[in-house]
Amino acid sequence: METFFSPRGIAVIGASRDPSRLGSLVLQNLLAAGYSGPIWPVNPSAEEIMGRPAAASLSEVPEPVEMVVLALRAEALPDFLTDLEKRMAIRGDVRALVAIGAGFLEDGTPEGAERQERLKATCRRLGIRLLGPNCIGVINTRTGVDTTFLSDPHRHKGGVSLATQSGALVAWLYGLWAGEPAAPGLAKVVSTGNAADVDLAEAVEYLAQDPETTCAGIYVEGTTQARRLLQSISEAAAQKPVVVLKGGRSAAGEAAAFSHTGSMAGAGALWEGALKQAGALQATTTEEFSVMLAAGERLWPYLAGISGPALRLALLTNAGGPGVLASDALFGHVRGQKPVLVPAVFDSLTREMLTASLPRGAACGRPDGYVDTTAAAGPREQAAALSIALRDPNVDAAYMIALPTPASPADAVADAILGALAEIPPEAARKPVMIIMAAGQHQAAGRQILTEAGRPVFASVNEAARALRALAEYRQWRAAQGWSRPWREVSA
Amino acid sequence: METFFSPRGIAVIGASRDPSRLGSLVLQNLLAAGYSGPIWPVNPSAEEIMGRPAAASLSEVPEPVEMVVLALRAEALPDFLTDLEKRMAIRGDVRALVAIGAGFLEDGTPEGAERQERLKATCRRLGIRLLGPNCIGVINTRTGVDTTFLSDPHRHKGGVSLATQSGALVAWLYGLWAGEPAAPGLAKVVSTGNAADVDLAEAVEYLAQDPETTCAGIYVEGTTQARRLLQSISEAAAQKPVVVLKGGRSAAGEAAAFSHTGSMAGAGALWEGALKQAGALQATTTEEFSVMLAAGERLWPYLAGISGPALRLALLTNAGGPGVLASDALFGHVRGQKPVLVPAVFDSLTREMLTASLPRGAACGRPDGYVDTTAAAGPREQAAALSIALRDPNVDAAYMIALPTPASPADAVADAILGALAEIPPEAARKPVMIIMAAGQHQAAGRQILTEAGRPVFASVNEAARALRALAEYRQWRAAQGWSRPWREVSA
Repeated sequence: METFFSPRGIAVIGASRDPSRLGSLVLQNLLAAGYSGPIWPVNPSAEEIMGRPAAASLSEVPEPVEMVVLALRAEALPDFLTDLEKRMAIRGDVRALVAIGAGFLEDGTPEGAERQERLKATCRRLGIRLLGPNCIGVINTRTGVDTTFLSDPHRHKGGVSLATQSGALVAWLYGLWAGEPAAPGLAKVVSTGNAADVDLAEAVEYLAQDPETTCAGIYVEGTTQARRLLQSISEAAAQKPVVVLKGGRSAAGEAAAFSHTGSMAGAGALWEGALKQAGALQATTTEEFSVMLAAGERLWPYLAGISGPALRLALLTNAGGPGVLASDALFGHVRGQKPVLVPAVFDSLTREMLTASLPRGAACGRPDGYVDTTAAAGPREQAAALSIALRDPNVDAAYMIALPTPASPADAVADAILGALAEIPPEAARKPVMIIMAAGQHQAAGRQILTEAGRPVFASVNEAARALRALAEYRQWRAAQGWSRPWREVSA
Repeated sequence: METFFSPRGIAVIGASRDPSRLGSLVLQNLLAAGYSGPIWPVNPSAEEIMGRPAAASLSEVPEPVEMVVLALRAEALPDFLTDLEKRMAIRGDVRALVAIGAGFLEDGTPEGAERQERLKATCRRLGIRLLGPNCIGVINTRTGVDTTFLSDPHRHKGGVSLATQSGALVAWLYGLWAGEPAAPGLAKVVSTGNAADVDLAEAVEYLAQDPETTCAGIYVEGTTQARRLLQSISEAAAQKPVVVLKGGRSAAGEAAAFSHTGSMAGAGALWEGALKQAGALQATTTEEFSVMLAAGERLWPYLAGISGPALRLALLTNAGGPGVLASDALFGHVRGQKPVLVPAVFDSLTREMLTASLPRGAACGRPDGYVDTTAAAGPREQAAALSIALRDPNVDAAYMIALPTPASPADAVADAILGALAEIPPEAARKPVMIIMAAGQHQAAGRQILTEAGRPVFASVNEAARALRALAEYRQWRAAQGWSRPWREVSA
């Protein structure tokens, strides 16, 4: 697997001077991502493509090629395989193959199935690992590997890695993240497509042990090896937050998934229970997936070390309605479920200090853990409320809505929050704080300032609240691992 | 009520040369919104504010004043009320008062309660309707009335009106809508605040009969007059889609709501059932509220005329994973519930035409109603799939995901869709089509083109799917009104 992420030398079969061809798009992304090893476009009828010398065939590439990206029409497969065998006979250096194009098992014809079988058999015989076919391949933001053909890629480096059965999902996330300063940072991406060789479980196993991945995101529709996948998720979850978006939860979605990747999606409720047992954070929409990934990357490091049965939360807001909606989302748990998140009960000193610092009419611990500073509170008063709450020993964490107002522009509030956190004792400043600044371009400056300071900030009340609850549940799952047998043994 | 939206003459009490004062922000928004009647800043120590001559007191304003916006500190109330009585004695022209500032019942002190009582009593005695106190007032985009102090207002005119118990919610929506070409257009806003006189039910009654409001959005936390509110919602829903976002559904949220507006929120499940009976579309997050409003404004006109028990839907996508997620969201209904939305069953001609028009490997009615064009489909092929599906007599409506790819940029896809719709028979082109183009700035051009052509386009798979299901339920509620007694009589 490692070769896919850090190959010595890459050849792109099917790159051409026509910039709209799949292979050209791959070459363009590879060049833009900053990969520093040799990159060779392979094309029988061009001497140079995008400023790079081209080789007429793979076997003629004069430099090492550890990874081949295959972006040819499926019909051209036999000639390529012959040339691949030739290269392996001469130099024997190829260790990984990413097959981008379609026209294999997923097209539903006997020819497609036969082609996939032949590709897989050749790779196996030659000792080459195969990703795909019918996938977007791999990304490693650290080494500048990017075999995708997606436009407007997200180049912000970070700790989030994705293993996905849908390449389009990555494009969708790019759209959500474009221009958003609080978007997650990306480490690695693996798209498994038809999974002729490398499957989702192996991709997850890799991400579990990858030190650059601090939070893993998985899009799964289905698999014939559900137990192995769940084991790999459970093992990864023992190391870092794992967020799972499951497609094909309904009968209709399952049938659609079958037409997509030919995999059986399986009953939604069964998956839900199994994923919960495996310690995964479960998202139901792409937006929630994205917010949970950001929370896993940025908030979890603050949350991980906190002990105690349920997380005692202070909920601060300068906006009444959004505060009420947040309260519903954070504490409106399913009846009978053991709460993982509870309103903090402030001590009397905290309530007195809040009352003294905030405008008249502010709610200071009415109800428990709730602070409505009112819209009259300026940046300094909002920040003061946060630091007072964090200094209360009965508070484990805070969720804070800062709706920018004319008197409290987003950047001023962000600066005031950072200033306040710098002035309180380190053990209080280290408590997890989830800051919510309303969506929209006008508030982006505030989200940028907080993100650059390493403080998790979000643009949605509800999805952030769900992410916080999911992380609080994950925290309990991790704690439970300490005194119960690991999931693997239980299910074996 | 009408005076609040179309007053002859407005005075702003508390406007000053300090641009950060509430009254100054109100004046600024009023001027920017383009209100064409007389606007008078009232301030004892300024002769001119923002280029407008100022009056020293309300009683001295030399032009008609039908509406007064009160943006003073609460302590200054007695002097204002004396001056208001004087004006009414001299000219008797004031008919509406918007009380913006806080410091009344919501601040929890006996003084606050007493102030509110006095304001209310004076207005009642003088025959003046009172909005607030502790609210952001009213907006009418047609007459240029905007008494709010919100920054970066949404100036796109349209058919969506809001009646809200939280002014902050409007600011939140402004954030969601900023720079988004597919954002709903705004008609009117009423923020009821402490509701000393005009309450939410009256605001909804007004919007029900307002011809410029084609879709109403309501944010409610609670009320002492739940039956009246539900009746007003039901009456409005008989005219136009009514989207309700309910804050305080959980015990914790209810307690927070009490601290916000002093109102009892009440058990979530009871509200849910009652709102369903009243024909409301129910949103659970601000994002969903926003998408449902846009769908109510733009998609409902296409949907309203369609007969038949359940809506037969074609689901088209060029992206596998998002298509599967959409299928879950659209058809994964609660077991046992009568479906309002079902996958269309294409006739054989449709399936043949799709197969002939789309790239190899495309799913053409496998499963029912599902078309995955694959990412290889260009703009023309995606648009062709849509027009083939719409021409099938077994299809009532379509939901189409168009994920932009390098070969299918968003603007080209939007143009191709509009071209295709122009070429098919009018009865096919009139069918409702919900188009989903991934979020993000890069796709905004596509959303802009479709919005300008009056075609509903959305940026989120899941929220749009939920909005479509909610509208399909609403359609059945409307149909059921035909053979059952109106809700009002049933509950009276």
